[in-house]
Amino acid sequence: MTVITLTTDFGTRDGNVGVMKGVIWGIAPDANIADISHDIAPQNIHQAAFVLTRHVFNFPEDTVHVVVVDPGVGTERRPIAAQVGSQRFVGPDNGVFTPMFQTAEKEGWPVRVIHTDNPKYWRGEISHVFHGRDVFAPVGAHLAIGVPLDKLGTPIHDPVRIPLPQPKRKETGVIGEVIHIDRFGNIFSNIRRDELVDLGDVEVSLCGATINSLVQTFGERAPGELIALYSSTDDLIIAEVNGDAGKRLNAKVGDEIKVVAK
Amino acid sequence: MTVITLTTDFGTRDGNVGVMKGVIWGIAPDANIADISHDIAPQNIHQAAFVLTRHVFNFPEDTVHVVVVDPGVGTERRPIAAQVGSQRFVGPDNGVFTPMFQTAEKEGWPVRVIHTDNPKYWRGEISHVFHGRDVFAPVGAHLAIGVPLDKLGTPIHDPVRIPLPQPKRKETGVIGEVIHIDRFGNIFSNIRRDELVDLGDVEVSLCGATINSLVQTFGERAPGELIALYSSTDDLIIAEVNGDAGKRLNAKVGDEIKVVAK
Amino acid sequence: MTVITLTTDFGTRDGNVGVMKGVIWGIAPDANIADISHDIAPQNIHQAAFVLTRHVFNFPEDTVHVVVVDPGVGTERRPIAAQVGSQRFVGPDNGVFTPMFQTAEKEGWPVRVIHTDNPKYWRGEISHVFHGRDVFAPVGAHLAIGVPLDKLGTPIHDPVRIPLPQPKRKETGVIGEVIHIDRFGNIFSNIRRDELVDLGDVEVSLCGATINSLVQTFGERAPGELIALYSSTDDLIIAEVNGDAGKRLNAKVGDEIKVVAK
Repeated sequence: MTVITLTTDFGTRDGNVGVMKGVIWGIAPDANIADISHDIAPQNIHQAAFVLTRHVFNFPEDTVHVVVVDPGVGTERRPIAAQVGSQRFVGPDNGVFTPMFQTAEKEGWPVRVIHTDNPKYWRGEISHVFHGRDVFAPVGAHLAIGVPLDKLGTPIHDPVRIPLPQPKRKETGVIGEVIHIDRFGNIFSNIRRDELVDLGDVEVSLCGATINSLVQTFGERAPGELIALYSSTDDLIIAEVNGDAGKRLNAKVGDEIKVVAK
Repeated sequence: MTVITLTTDFGTRDGNVGVMKGVIWGIAPDANIADISHDIAPQNIHQAAFVLTRHVFNFPEDTVHVVVVDPGVGTERRPIAAQVGSQRFVGPDNGVFTPMFQTAEKEGWPVRVIHTDNPKYWRGEISHVFHGRDVFAPVGAHLAIGVPLDKLGTPIHDPVRIPLPQPKRKETGVIGEVIHIDRFGNIFSNIRRDELVDLGDVEVSLCGATINSLVQTFGERAPGELIALYSSTDDLIIAEVNGDAGKRLNAKVGDEIKVVAK
Repeated sequence: MTVITLTTDFGTRDGNVGVMKGVIWGIAPDANIADISHDIAPQNIHQAAFVLTRHVFNFPEDTVHVVVVDPGVGTERRPIAAQVGSQRFVGPDNGVFTPMFQTAEKEGWPVRVIHTDNPKYWRGEISHVFHGRDVFAPVGAHLAIGVPLDKLGTPIHDPVRIPLPQPKRKETGVIGEVIHIDRFGNIFSNIRRDELVDLGDVEVSLCGATINSLVQTFGERAPGELIALYSSTDDLIIAEVNGDAGKRLNAKVGDEIKVVAK
C-alpha cells in the first residue's frame, strides 16, 4: 500500500504517464499512485523542484516520489534514488532534488543518495529517450515493495545541486523574487514565513503594486482586492481575492518582491 | 476499498490534488480515489454543483465525494459532511451540495448533515488557505475507513443553499437556460427529460437557431447537423454531430433555451 | 489487482472519466486504473489508435484496455472485446484497434474478438450517448474480475479496420508521413526502426528542413538543434533539443517525411 507519486513534464495527452503506471503495477501491484504534476514546463527543473518541495513532506512516511523532468535522458547524467528524512526519491541527477536536500540539512534529517546503476531493477530493454518508463518507474516500484535503497546501486555523496534564488535580508526588510504562479494566478515568492516573523507589520511591493499588510486568508478582504498572505506551505504569496493576481500584475518568474517593515 | 472522489478547482499543475491523495492514503490506504474534475472554473460553485449532481448517483453505494471549491476557506463558513441517500459528501458549506439535497427531497431519500467541527479527524496543523488538504481530505478518509458520520461533529439542519435556475413551464412549452457547455461543445440545459415527456414532438430554439425534433443519439443525423437529445443523465442537450455546438452558436451559460410543442 | 486502462476523448473537466472509474470499482474493487489519455481529439479514431499502439504492449499481462472514442455511440456499431496476445481490449468496433490487430498478425500472436452483446455484463440501464459508462466500463471490469472473454457475447471475425498510412519503400529510401505531434512538439512518423536498419547513414527531410543523421538521444546535440532519432517505441521522430520541432517546422499530421540513404 506504499504511495508512489509521479511528477513529470510529459503532459497527460500522449500516454507516457499511463505506461509508467502500468510498469509500476507490474512490479508493485499494491502501490497507490498519486500524480503530483505532469504539467511541469518542458525541461524546467526549477519548476519541478519547487512544486515537489512544497508538497512532498506532507505525504505518508516512506512514500516514493518518482520525478522525470530529464533533459539529459540517455546521456552520462546519473539516475539516482535518495532517502531524505522519511521520504524517498527517484529521478535524474540534475539538481531537481536540491530543495529537499536543503530542507534535510536545515532540519537535521539523514540523507542517503544512491547512483541506481544496478540494472537488475530496471526493465529488460532500456530506451535512450524514456528512462521514466525503463529506469525510474521500475526502480521506484522496487523501492515500494521493500527492496532496500542500497541494493539499487552505488552510494554517492555529490548529487548535482542547482542554484535556487535566495531572498536577501536588508536593513529594513527582505528582497525576494517570484518563483511560481499557480493556476489561480497566485504569485509565490521565495520568501518564507520564518524570514518575516521578526519584522512586525510589513508592506509588500512587486510589479508596481504595493500591499499594505498581510492577511490570514482570502475571505478577509473584498473580491478584487490584492492581498499578501502565507500559502499552505508557508511561502509568502500575493493574490487577488476571487481573481488572478498574476495576470493583473503581469508578473513573471524572477520579478522582484520587496517586503519592508512599517 | 471504498471509493473516494475528488472535485476541485485546483487544476492539476500545482500538486494540490496529489497531496490530498497522499493525506487520504495515509489514513485510508485501501481507498480507491477517482478524480471527477479539477478543472472547475476557479470559485465557481454553480459549475461544481452541476458537474457533481450529474455523476454522483452513479457511483457505488457509500462512495465519499470530497469537494473543494471553496472561496470562503479560512473564514467562518462551516466545513460539512452529509449523507444523501447512498452517497456521502464532504466539503465547504457554501451551497455546492444544493442539487444533491434537492434530488434527495424529490426522491424521498434520507439526508443528514454534520458540521465537521471535531478536530480529531483533521490534520494536526490547519492552514488558513488549504482546507482541502487539512480538513476535507482527512475527514473524507476517516469516513471511508468507517468512522460514523455523527462522530465528525455537530448535526445541522440549515446547510447553505444556492439558487439554481429553474425551467419555467409555459402553456406551449418550457423555457430554460444553458447551464454548462462540455468539452465537446455540447450545450447542457436545465430542462430535464421528465419535464418534456407530455409535450410530444417539440422544437428547440436557442441563440438564434431552431432544431426541429429530438433524436436519441448522435449517429441519427449527418456530421455538421445541429441536434437536440437527452444526455446520459437525462438533461436536454443541444449538440452538433461530430462538431462543437457551443462554438457554432456562441452559446454562454445563462442563454435562454425554448422548447415548444409542435 | 488487474490493471485497467482508460483512453477516451472525454477530457477531464466534465466528470465522465470519474464516473467510469466509479462503475469499474463497483464491479472490480481491486482493479488498478491507469489513464492512458483523455485528450484524444474529439472523435479522432486514428489518434486514439496511434497513442494506444505505442503503449499497450508495455503493460502487464492481462491488462484490460478500455477505449471510448466513439462517434457511433448508440447506433448499429458493435461494442467489442478482444484478446490480442497478452493484452485485452474493450471498446467500439470502429477500427480503433486496427494497429493492435496488425501487430498481432506480424508477431504471430493469437487474436480473439467478441461482439459484447450479452447484457448481463452491462449496467442495468443503457444511455444512448454514454456507452463508456454503461457498456464498456462494466464489460472491462467483468473481464478484470475473471469473467472469460467468450461469456461476454458472440465471437466475430470481421472487426472494422481503418486504413493506416503505410510508409513507401523507394530505391533510395523511405517516404512516410507525420502521424502524431506530442506535447513536447516531437514529430512522430509512421516509419519504424526496422524499416531503416539496412539503409545505413540517412538524411531526413520534412517541411523544408533536412537533418543530416540520426542520433540516439537528445543530449548528443546542442539545445535548439533539430534532430532525428528513434522514440521509446522505435518510431522515427524529429525533435528540437530542448525545443518544439512541431511549432518550428509548422508540421501537421499528414505532412510528408523523406528518409534517404547517404
